[in-house]
Amino acid sequence: MTEQKRALVEEMTRLLGEDAVLHRDADLITYECDGLTVFRGMPLAVVFPATTEEVSDVVKWLYAHEIPFIPRGAGTGLSGGATPFGGEVIISLVRMKALLHVDYDNREAVVQPGYINLALTNSITHKGFYYAPDPSSQANCTIGGNVAENAGGAHCLKYGVTTNHVLGLEVVMHDGEIVELGGVPDAPGYDLLGILTGSEGTLGIVTSITVRILKQPESKETALAYFDSAEDASYAVSDIIAAGIVPAAIEMMDEIAIQGVERATNPVGHPEGLKAVLIMEVDGIAAGIEDQIDEMVKVCERHNVKEIRVAQDDRERGKWWANRKTAFGAMGAISPAYLVQDGVIPRSRLSEVLARIAEISAESGLRIANVFHAGDGNLHPLILFDARNEGETDLALEVGTKTLEACTDVGGSITGEHGVGIEKKEDMRLVFTEEEIDRQLAVRDVFNPNNLMNPDKQFPKPARCGEVKHAVGSGEAHQAVNIH
Amino acid sequence: MTEQKRALVEEMTRLLGEDAVLHRDADLITYECDGLTVFRGMPLAVVFPATTEEVSDVVKWLYAHEIPFIPRGAGTGLSGGATPFGGEVIISLVRMKALLHVDYDNREAVVQPGYINLALTNSITHKGFYYAPDPSSQANCTIGGNVAENAGGAHCLKYGVTTNHVLGLEVVMHDGEIVELGGVPDAPGYDLLGILTGSEGTLGIVTSITVRILKQPESKETALAYFDSAEDASYAVSDIIAAGIVPAAIEMMDEIAIQGVERATNPVGHPEGLKAVLIMEVDGIAAGIEDQIDEMVKVCERHNVKEIRVAQDDRERGKWWANRKTAFGAMGAISPAYLVQDGVIPRSRLSEVLARIAEISAESGLRIANVFHAGDGNLHPLILFDARNEGETDLALEVGTKTLEACTDVGGSITGEHGVGIEKKEDMRLVFTEEEIDRQLAVRDVFNPNNLMNPDKQFPKPARCGEVKHAVGSGEAHQAVNIH
Repeated sequence: MTEQKRALVEEMTRLLGEDAVLHRDADLITYECDGLTVFRGMPLAVVFPATTEEVSDVVKWLYAHEIPFIPRGAGTGLSGGATPFGGEVIISLVRMKALLHVDYDNREAVVQPGYINLALTNSITHKGFYYAPDPSSQANCTIGGNVAENAGGAHCLKYGVTTNHVLGLEVVMHDGEIVELGGVPDAPGYDLLGILTGSEGTLGIVTSITVRILKQPESKETALAYFDSAEDASYAVSDIIAAGIVPAAIEMMDEIAIQGVERATNPVGHPEGLKAVLIMEVDGIAAGIEDQIDEMVKVCERHNVKEIRVAQDDRERGKWWANRKTAFGAMGAISPAYLVQDGVIPRSRLSEVLARIAEISAESGLRIANVFHAGDGNLHPLILFDARNEGETDLALEVGTKTLEACTDVGGSITGEHGVGIEKKEDMRLVFTEEEIDRQLAVRDVFNPNNLMNPDKQFPKPARCGEVKHAVGSGEAHQAVNIH
Repeated sequence: MTEQKRALVEEMTRLLGEDAVLHRDADLITYECDGLTVFRGMPLAVVFPATTEEVSDVVKWLYAHEIPFIPRGAGTGLSGGATPFGGEVIISLVRMKALLHVDYDNREAVVQPGYINLALTNSITHKGFYYAPDPSSQANCTIGGNVAENAGGAHCLKYGVTTNHVLGLEVVMHDGEIVELGGVPDAPGYDLLGILTGSEGTLGIVTSITVRILKQPESKETALAYFDSAEDASYAVSDIIAAGIVPAAIEMMDEIAIQGVERATNPVGHPEGLKAVLIMEVDGIAAGIEDQIDEMVKVCERHNVKEIRVAQDDRERGKWWANRKTAFGAMGAISPAYLVQDGVIPRSRLSEVLARIAEISAESGLRIANVFHAGDGNLHPLILFDARNEGETDLALEVGTKTLEACTDVGGSITGEHGVGIEKKEDMRLVFTEEEIDRQLAVRDVFNPNNLMNPDKQFPKPARCGEVKHAVGSGEAHQAVNIH
């Protein structure tokens, strides 16, 4: 153990207690990656503060000793945001898992960062309320992690992503200071709440979150639409949106994805040989629901739908959603490994981009399944590979980047809900110029001046080597380069 | 004319042409304030660039010569955001008034900053689309100004404020550099688009705006609910929201406001002696609309509503909205002058805060009318006064601050949609600590390092005199004070 590590363990044990500090290699190995398993590194230690003050104390000490650190929720992230490169301390927030307060009148709840996403809905459902953002990992992921990644989910088409539901944050800053952001309705000044949300642990550690809770819709209908052609399904999606319907969700799975989910833990008995299925849901006032489903069915019929099934009850609906939400994991049934991508495209380019992804698959020889939020244009190509084959992991990563290029080529983006993390740092250059990246880093410097908070994530290294003093504009400071 | 002004006028004339530069006092007087008329100051000059490149050229010259400047749209702002203190150059964007592009498939429009808010809806209505944010000034205000102030409107209850509809911005930065923000779906990295929106001209000059356009709802119903008690009306509002209805709008006018609108240009014949009227609108799929109106009527009946009227057609609905939207101006019919405030409160505290505002009115001797977005908890106390009476303007400003205190006392905020501007700079201390203000100023310094862009707006001066180097946290830089 180095002298630095010895001092760290001693001080963390003093601050948090012995059972709140992991430092042996055998204990640390669980923390060498998050849900993106192709990148790994060992943390220096893992600590488990139980209160905001403990987080603050830990950060103050790390700041004073210039030791980098990474906040971590449930570790379900898919872009490597919580993965250490080596040398960072992981601050796990799983002990801060309380639901602190619910205000039904003003439709707000206050949770600690380690509180599980689905637990919130489960806790307020008896009063007729729910929490809208619903990542596929919602049974395991934490709301703190959701805030860090600005997580999405199937129902974000109608209800928006995490940032649309965060009303206030308590944050421990880089030096241990505890601050409140938002918390008042329509806070004046600059939207720092918006900046913190989706900042992937690089601007502060969220220790309390005030979220909007919604009244459960009076009524809900869910339908499956089966297609013999992914192109037909794509056009149906565009036309449903164009018809002025705002569905709660429209999800799509392609042929390989359907094969996967049907061999996994929640098969629903989709017919054999399908090329695409749409899962379409509408919700709201009961009186309007039937009409909307009817209209969606009509649009699907115009695009050669093979069969439509409407869920008969909540049990059936639940089964269909469980089937959809196991899709990533289900890839294990048909491939030794997979990499999921997270591109976003204008909805009207869906068919074209799916065709391009099929080409990329053919060129590379790797199968690609598609399971995605079709209504949002948020694609999730699942690149199937076998890490035991020499070079295939690298090939899968290359193919992932190519699928993102297919998205940015049509004016899209590289992430809809999974974040940039380690994985897509270099891909940021597909979306931003060097100057634009510098401007973002200048904002980071305000909150994270010595780059100890989740270092080397979310943004690529500046094109020039050395430490660049970030500033906006073409003034002198912009050019200052301090090689070290 | 000073040497500096002579050089400015000469260079601006060279860059933009003679008819694009105003510099004589008689011409400048129109620009000494915006819609908040109690604060005034004379600009050094007013210039009218016609293109992004011209804005950039103007800013580059001003930056090189260290002359402060203020962007201005239609000048309908209500917090003095476009008001010069003296010495600034006003960059008017009214010549940049084109609708550049509409993409119905992807539901986006691109406009120049001087494009009028209502013109967008008028231009796309034949295709069944509209632009949702609808400030009362929508027939005159510009979308650039809406972005600067993060403007709201009656229908923001359901559809959100301007920031929820801005998808991308082209911005001229403090030194004249032209940058693009957003523009791709779900842009990764920090939410700079969100920071720019509502930054009141302090972070950049918006020269092109990509906004979301919405499909017109299939159906719409509007009802007036008349009450003999403002308290009853307040509880009806809370209960409608609590019932799970998401109305497109719920507006409230109190007794004095009703008297005003009935004597102004669009009377609708509200009964005499009312204490409150609610204007309630629901929209969406036709089949659900009747049920929602019925449920809202039932809630109003539980709270002793006196009479309900449902609009028979678009003409009647339009008349009611025109009546509501003249409410501010209508104060001219019952008072020589008025000051409008813009507090926000948790909806459940509506009745209590209205009672407190009535007390403030009684204590001060100034009448206060209330016209506001009740469903949002966004209050607009209209403080009626006569500037000819010695000290009454100052008294009105004091009363305005007291109404804001009544809002922040219950956990509310000082602005919902009008911005901070000059008027509420000091009131920022009701919401933020000195450290929190410093943190916001640190973000401003990234984009506006020499404070030439709309100086001395939106934030109070730091408590200590002199120029403070803003930095976050408790580190050394935070303490550095450079007295000059």
